Amino acid sequence: MEQESSFEVFEEETLEDLQLGGYFILQKEKAFRFGMDAVLLSNFTASDLKFKKDFTLLDLGTGTGILPILLAAKTRASLLTGIEIQAPMAEMARRSVQGNGLSGRIEILDLDIKEASLRLPLGSFDNVATNPPYTKAGGGMINPGDTKAISRHELLCTLRDVVKTAAALLKPNGSFYMVHRPDRLSEIFAQMQAFKLEPKLLRLVCPRLGEAPSLILVKGTKFGNPGMKLPPPIYIYDSEGRYTEEVQMAYGT
Amino acid sequence: MEQESSFEVFEEETLEDLQLGGYFILQKEKAFRFGMDAVLLSNFTASDLKFKKDFTLLDLGTGTGILPILLAAKTRASLLTGIEIQAPMAEMARRSVQGNGLSGRIEILDLDIKEASLRLPLGSFDNVATNPPYTKAGGGMINPGDTKAISRHELLCTLRDVVKTAAALLKPNGSFYMVHRPDRLSEIFAQMQAFKLEPKLLRLVCPRLGEAPSLILVKGTKFGNPGMKLPPPIYIYDSEGRYTEEVQMAYGT
Repeated sequence: MEQESSFEVFEEETLEDLQLGGYFILQKEKAFRFGMDAVLLSNFTASDLKFKKDFTLLDLGTGTGILPILLAAKTRASLLTGIEIQAPMAEMARRSVQGNGLSGRIEILDLDIKEASLRLPLGSFDNVATNPPYTKAGGGMINPGDTKAISRHELLCTLRDVVKTAAALLKPNGSFYMVHRPDRLSEIFAQMQAFKLEPKLLRLVCPRLGEAPSLILVKGTKFGNPGMKLPPPIYIYDSEGRYTEEVQMAYGT
Repeated sequence: MEQESSFEVFEEETLEDLQLGGYFILQKEKAFRFGMDAVLLSNFTASDLKFKKDFTLLDLGTGTGILPILLAAKTRASLLTGIEIQAPMAEMARRSVQGNGLSGRIEILDLDIKEASLRLPLGSFDNVATNPPYTKAGGGMINPGDTKAISRHELLCTLRDVVKTAAALLKPNGSFYMVHRPDRLSEIFAQMQAFKLEPKLLRLVCPRLGEAPSLILVKGTKFGNPGMKLPPPIYIYDSEGRYTEEVQMAYGT
């Protein structure tokens, strides 16, 4: 509770209680706000890393810094690095990190995903995670200054850019974690294999029983051998419209 | 019912009622018997072709001929061709076809999948379907004369052989349907893309809610563009251990 008083909250920003480790996050009222995607990705990643400690993890396109902050609470990572191309977003993420007293474990860098492999040491991260833009850039319908559009559409980086950068910055045998849309699955695997991130784990996330998946969670291993695991699909809501136990747990520690 | 009398049933063979269109199938008591895999593949294929008629379909490694016989009942295919490397199996499949009065719509050829693209006209089939061996050939543990082993392990053909042959024999824009194991998913997509069969549809088949998938159903389109559909996962049993409605329907017409 004392932590809250140390957040600098600017106009048009809200401070949201993550209900996890006493942490909070700053978000813009009108910009991209973290959702189920980030929570599920954090849980997918944390579950896979639950027996590890003192590892590093790089988040490509960290936005508000939600993923490093959730992973600081859910894992024993020693250093979580988030990079973000949008300077005002990165600045706000740094205030969230500071306000949460996480400056010793999380760093937020102003950095374009496409330039990250020129600026960060190649083959140096134990893990890379990302919640990238899901949708291909279409015609000229989107305002490129629109923060939401940059987070959702492949305006400033493509799937290929994200995967290529992850592969370049991961250590051999390092892990890559991504949340994305089911319709991109074959492209995702193709890009991962092109850059030697062998797909090892795939989970479908469906809103309700009998409904098609709305998200996928994928793990790849750098220089891994073929052979996958597909655990049970995740359902978000039960038949009574409440969060399922698995999703409730994803929101907890 | 009169049809049954026209089956020649040899020793160590059983005649099984498919409970579909009045059709039956001959199987060896000790060899590979058709299972849920063939039934689910036939339904996956038939659902996708439900608005089509007068098309051709090639089944790679037809075994007892179960897939062409089920698809004769479930689709408006004009010609279903099954190829089979094991001569005694192909001979038995031909007796099933004949006994069911399906000789006008189904042909069974003695043919190795690896040689099919040298013997059948390239780019000539509207569709190709297959229920191939699932498991990589390991060490020397398997007797290569064992019919069951040939159906289950990649002794006489690999995933690559199956996909390569399918791609060579399909018309442009033709459809490829396959049932396989989840652990092979990334290899399946990689092989399909290598031979220009773009993955378009993926369904997971799970025994029960909360359990991991035991089978996958994949459709690819020759020269298709990237972009996939993942319909809801299929469950085989409901919470009371009965077949779910979807699986009951797969066993019907």
